This record gives sequence, structure tokens and C-alpha cells, in this order.
Amino acid sequence: MQDRTYTADAEPGESATVAGWVHEIRDLGGIAFIILRDVSGKIQIKFEKDEMDDDLVETGLGVSRESVISVTGDVEEEPRAPTGVEVTPESVEVISDADPELPLDPSGKVDAELSTRLDNRTLDLRKPEVQAVFTIRSEILRAVRERFRDLRATEITTPKIVATGTEGGTELFPITYFGEEAFMNQSPQLFKQLIAGSNVERVFEIGPIFRAEEHNTPRHLNEATSIDFEGAFCDQSDAMDVAEEVVVAAYEAAAENCADELETLGLAEEFEVPNDGFPRLSYEEAIERINATGELDEQLVWGDDLPTEGEKALGDDVGGHYFITDWPSEIKPFYIMDHDEDEQLSTGFDLMHPRMELVSGGQREHRHDELVAGFEQQGLDPDQFEYYTKMFKYGMPPHAGFGLGGERLIMTLLGLDNIREAVLFPRDRQRLSP
Amino acid sequence: MQDRTYTADAEPGESATVAGWVHEIRDLGGIAFIILRDVSGKIQIKFEKDEMDDDLVETGLGVSRESVISVTGDVEEEPRAPTGVEVTPESVEVISDADPELPLDPSGKVDAELSTRLDNRTLDLRKPEVQAVFTIRSEILRAVRERFRDLRATEITTPKIVATGTEGGTELFPITYFGEEAFMNQSPQLFKQLIAGSNVERVFEIGPIFRAEEHNTPRHLNEATSIDFEGAFCDQSDAMDVAEEVVVAAYEAAAENCADELETLGLAEEFEVPNDGFPRLSYEEAIERINATGELDEQLVWGDDLPTEGEKALGDDVGGHYFITDWPSEIKPFYIMDHDEDEQLSTGFDLMHPRMELVSGGQREHRHDELVAGFEQQGLDPDQFEYYTKMFKYGMPPHAGFGLGGERLIMTLLGLDNIREAVLFPRDRQRLSP
Repeated sequence: MQDRTYTADAEPGESATVAGWVHEIRDLGGIAFIILRDVSGKIQIKFEKDEMDDDLVETGLGVSRESVISVTGDVEEEPRAPTGVEVTPESVEVISDADPELPLDPSGKVDAELSTRLDNRTLDLRKPEVQAVFTIRSEILRAVRERFRDLRATEITTPKIVATGTEGGTELFPITYFGEEAFMNQSPQLFKQLIAGSNVERVFEIGPIFRAEEHNTPRHLNEATSIDFEGAFCDQSDAMDVAEEVVVAAYEAAAENCADELETLGLAEEFEVPNDGFPRLSYEEAIERINATGELDEQLVWGDDLPTEGEKALGDDVGGHYFITDWPSEIKPFYIMDHDEDEQLSTGFDLMHPRMELVSGGQREHRHDELVAGFEQQGLDPDQFEYYTKMFKYGMPPHAGFGLGGERLIMTLLGLDNIREAVLFPRDRQRLSP
Repeated sequence: MQDRTYTADAEPGESATVAGWVHEIRDLGGIAFIILRDVSGKIQIKFEKDEMDDDLVETGLGVSRESVISVTGDVEEEPRAPTGVEVTPESVEVISDADPELPLDPSGKVDAELSTRLDNRTLDLRKPEVQAVFTIRSEILRAVRERFRDLRATEITTPKIVATGTEGGTELFPITYFGEEAFMNQSPQLFKQLIAGSNVERVFEIGPIFRAEEHNTPRHLNEATSIDFEGAFCDQSDAMDVAEEVVVAAYEAAAENCADELETLGLAEEFEVPNDGFPRLSYEEAIERINATGELDEQLVWGDDLPTEGEKALGDDVGGHYFITDWPSEIKPFYIMDHDEDEQLSTGFDLMHPRMELVSGGQREHRHDELVAGFEQQGLDPDQFEYYTKMFKYGMPPHAGFGLGGERLIMTLLGLDNIREAVLFPRDRQRLSP
């Protein structure tokens, strides 16, 4: 395959072998064209029926759309061709003949339901606007990791098979592990803390998390990509700084390195990198502002979790990314530290996009005895977590961190309607395959 | 925490606040020293008992090793100090007092069993030689991804919860997925092929794989990190080129960017980046050479899989990385393509380090009917894999790829005795926690 030329690299005046998918066949009678598509773009193949070998014409024009062919011939300038060049074939090889009945039209001329698209991802991804999402996703992952490294964080890998869930036994997928009960991990939370407490100090991980939540919404997945950070000698304010930097880095990377893909998605004009300095609202201010919008039937009172409509109303009101800080301790998990001055208030924070929550974070409880007491307060058995709590007896520094939903970041950044569009093979209650 | 200075950045002539772990306490009577350690290095704190506030001396010298403290004071040059500078404290804050009975000595003066180390990873990672392994691991992951991107590959994320295993029902961990039977994925194989067959063309993924193998050896894990590549319009030779590039890139990154860590591990002298152009031995040559070593009790015959001792004998004979190509079709999975000229011979290859296999790869069967026949030949039900096979009807290009064992790469690169040393929290038959 080494002598294959990408369609975008085929230079007029040379002979080249190009290979890819038959995107379109236009038969005008005496002359016919195939538009051949590969990862780099498209190129026109010209068949002048009277001047060419019959077998060659028959082979070339006998294929159906989406077949894979390889074409060798001279590349020439042709201003009327879509990309300004065309190939006059000397040979055509049909590598993989496609069934003419496609379950999905990759040209995008016929709309398809999301479920049909997901059942036929190979075909779906041949659409430029779908491929663009995943090219941008790949670039965002790169940029986010780079930013973490700039902040002196070490990339870690933590186990996905665990003996106990991060937050107890709810919403866990059980697995059978050599006869023992185990679970698929909900979050790298406890593990990243154990590493931040060694003198690695700052760590990040981008990996899968698994949640057996019975949600069925456009913004929940049962298997998702979590972008996690944890830093020793950090407080919640430092963690918010890092979360903000990482989100901004994702937007910057898309703007700087994915201009073509944003264009393909029709976002080139409107795409904006958010300014840093996201507003930081306390939970108390947040409920006051939500109540003031008058969008909710019932006024929120201190201690309530924010309902989805409340988040939406506040998002519209703020109009950009923002933090909600100082949540009631009761709403936040045991590993979040309370404020020194007020035990009812936690150091937990959320980073919100106007459409939804992206990040949950906070300063962690690093004091052994307070941590163990927190387990008990939340009805969890601290003995089950001894592998974790015991390390807090041997010099655990103050530390803070967050988890950022990878698909939510991509979904909000690109304005996708459904989170399933931000992942190749989504997993939800109904979907286990492909 | 913003005004904390890393110990390595504390400049003589300034006042600074440093924070970290109490690495050592040396009390010489009238004068005492604490060696304070953080991620950047170590610094000496000087206590001149007669000239300092009693409370300060008592607080500072009252802590036990591995406690976390914060010290503010003037930084001065002191040639006798380990790093040439020391801090004379004006204030000392004990942030986290450590239990004097440590289950593991992070100074490394007392040896610990691997299982004790893994049970106490937070303490274990405070040893420079352990931290060095994971700093290098982080850098290798970065370098490998960068190399894949240079090769125009897109980073993908594929599901870890699947309806069917890559290679059938054996060696899978079963999970309960909303009442349905599902499995943890053994390999992203089928998914990466489905994406390579769209016009994304080249993809890579670094993620967890799960194998319920009942191995109990120093080179097997039940949860491991797989470094996967798949490329459309690639054959096995192209895939071998990519595998070789990626392995060499990992060595180059360690050599160029982890000199201090290699020094810490005592590898600075001997560490060598392998030359590219790894020898490519056919399976037939491989068994001949193994037989010629005389190391095996019984001679291998064509069709045998290579026993571990055979791999070792051949590894010693070759003396560096090498490929074994053209394996018997029977030994390789259904998705590996056979040679056109000889159906007994597959395009499958392994990339070997003298100590063990690192990579398994090959050209894939992209022809629908041959693929379905291959399932049947291996006793698998093609209907169960219809989500995968049906995409081969719609223009599947020839493609090839490989999976590289992430921990095996790190283990062999650093000469670690046990693969469990290359992963933070290993999973094996006996170990599910932490």
C-alpha cells in the first residue's frame, strides 16, 4: 500500500495511485465521472468511454457507491472538477464491492434517525460532519492532556475493576471477578487521591467511568469518558483555576487546529473561545438568582439540589460558563471537605455550561478521623474503604481536584443535541451493541 | 496554597514558604535538621535550638517522619546541606501528622514485599525509584500518542462494556447490564476496525482491556493497558512499521526526557534506544532457530504455538526486538487474514522483546464472506457478531493493525521484574483492592 497517494496530495502532471470510497458516480453518456473519497478529501476520476478500454470503463462504472477502489492514472488540472484536478485512469481495481442497498446514506442527502446512525457507525462516520466531531474530539483530548502536563501533572491509569464503589453500592454495575463480587468503577476519585497523596502531587487521568443510572436523557451515558485531575497542596480555588484552564484549552485547540472541521459543522462564524475568569457564584447566590428568574413553579430553599430547569434558568441568566461554589455539605459526597467556619457548607463546586453541569470538584477531606466520620454520616461502612482511609494516617496533604465529563465538554463545545453524538459507540439502557 | 514555593525553586536570599513531607529528622543536640521533600526535590530546614523560639522548635521537631508540614523562613546558601541551601524557619505548621508506625518505609532503607508495597501505594510512591517508573510511564504515553498523531491517526474511545467478546465467550468477565448479560471488553479490536473502515482510516486508542485468564505469572495482568492501532489501506508490513516506530518512540522519549528518572533507576549507563529495522523472522524460521538452540526438551513442529521457554531461547539468540511473521492460520484469531497463496499461513505477526511478546497484529480479513466463514471455522456464531460483520458489506477497505501491551512495554523498557511494578493498582486473581 506504500505507493498510494492521498487524494489531497495528487499533483497535476504526475501519475498516481489513489484509493478510497466511491462517493458519487455521474454518468453523462459519452463521459462519466467517479468522485473518489479518502481521509484527505475527494478527487474526480474521468471516464471517456469512447477513448478508453471497454473493460476499464465497465469495471470502473460497474461499482456501486461506497465501494472501495484503487485507481492509477495521470493527474491533470481540470478547473471544472470539484477540487480542480482529475485522474484519467489507466487501471482500476475494485477492492471491496459495496452492497447497493445501504442502510444509511453517507452522502447525507437522506436524513437518518440517531439509532440508525449508531447501528451503522462505519457508514455514519463517512459523513464529513460526523467525522469532524471525532476529529475535534481527538484534538481536544490532546490539548487537555498537554495543558495538564504544563501544570506539572503526571498521567495516571487507575483500575476500572474495583471492590467497592466510590460512593457506595448504588448505581454500580456488578461483575463477577474470579468468583468474587466486584464492580466497574464509577470514578477514579479514591485512586487519584491516593496518588496525589504520594509525592507525585498532581495527577490526571482520561478514562472510562461506568454508571448504572437509570437515566434516559440526551445528556447522560452509562459509560462515559471522565477527565480527572487531583492536586496536592491545592484548595478548591486552585482546582477551579485548573478546571477553567482545561476547558478554555479545549476551546482554543478547536479554534486553532480544527478550523476546517468547525467550518464543516457550520460553526466557523459563531465559535467563540470563552474568556477566562468564569464567574464564581455561591450556591446561595445561585438559588437566589434562579428564584429571581421566576422560571420555577416553586421557589428553591437552602438545601435543595438544583433541578434541571433551575440550572437552565441560571445558565440563560449568566450566559456563559460559571462556577457554583460552597454547596451544602449534605448534597456533596463524603470526600468533599467542609468549610472550617461552617460545617453546613462544603468546599464542593460545579463548573456549569449554560446547558448543563460539566465539572464536579472540591477540596478533599484529608484528615483521617474526619474522613472516617464522613463515611458514617453518609451511611457507608468505613471498613469497606480501609484500603483508602488507612493511607490518610501517613501524611496526607491537603488536596483538591475535579472530574470533567468528556462527552459533555464536546457536546456543549460543538452544540450537539444529544450526548450520544459525542461518543462513537454510546452505552445506555437500551444500547449495548455495537 | 498559591504562595507555596517548590523546594527546588527556593532561592537563597529570599523568604519562602515550602511544604511537603518530613523525609528525615537529624537531631544533633544543639542543632537539628529536617529534610523536607516535595515533588520537586528536597530542602534542609535548620533548627538552632538555643536561638529559636521553644514552641517553634518543639512543633518542628515533634513531628514524625512522613508528616506533612509547611515552613516559612529565610532561604540561605549552605554548602553542607544536601542541596546547597537551607531554610531557617520563622514558622512551622503541621498540616498532617503521620502515625510513627509506618507499614512501609518510604526512605527505602527497609525492603518490602511487592504485596506490602501494593497495599500501601501512597507510601510506596514516595520512593524516588517507584515514582520514576510512573513519571516515565506518563512520558511514554505522551510520546506514543504523539507518534500516532504524526502518522495521521485519530484518537478514539471505544466501549468497555460489550455484548460479545472479541474472541468469543472465553476469558471474559461477565457483568450484569440492566438485567442483561454483558462483558468487559478484552480488546478494542472489532471497534477499531469498524472505525478504520469509515474514512477516518487510521485510529489509535490507549485504554483498559480486561482478561479473565487464570494466569498467575510476573507478566500477566487481568486488567491491562492496551495501545491499539488500526489503519485502512495498510497491510501487515505497514502495521509492523508502525509498531516498530511506536516502540522506538517510547525508548526515545525516555532517553530524551527522563534522564533524571533513568539515573534514579540506575539505568542511565545501560539504557539504549533500539535501532529500527527489527529483524522479521517467519514463524518457520523461528521454530527452526528455537530447535537449533537445543534449549527445548522436545523439538517444535510446524503448527505448534511457541512455548515460553522457546520464546526465551529465541530472544537470547536474536538479542533484541524482532518480529515473528506468517504464523499458521490456526493459531491466529478469525479476524486475521490468510495469505492469498497459502491458506495455512496467516498475515498475523508478533513483535517480541527478548523477554516476552509485546505486540500482536496482522492484516485483517476485510472480505465479508471470508470473515463470516472464519467465525464458523473457529466455532463462533457469526450471528452474534452481526453488528460487526454487516459493516463489511458496505465498502470495507483492506486494513491492518496491532495491539501493544502498555505494561509489557514499560516493564521491558525499564527491566522491571514483575509487570505489577508497571501499573499503579494491579488486578490479578488475588488482588482486587486497592
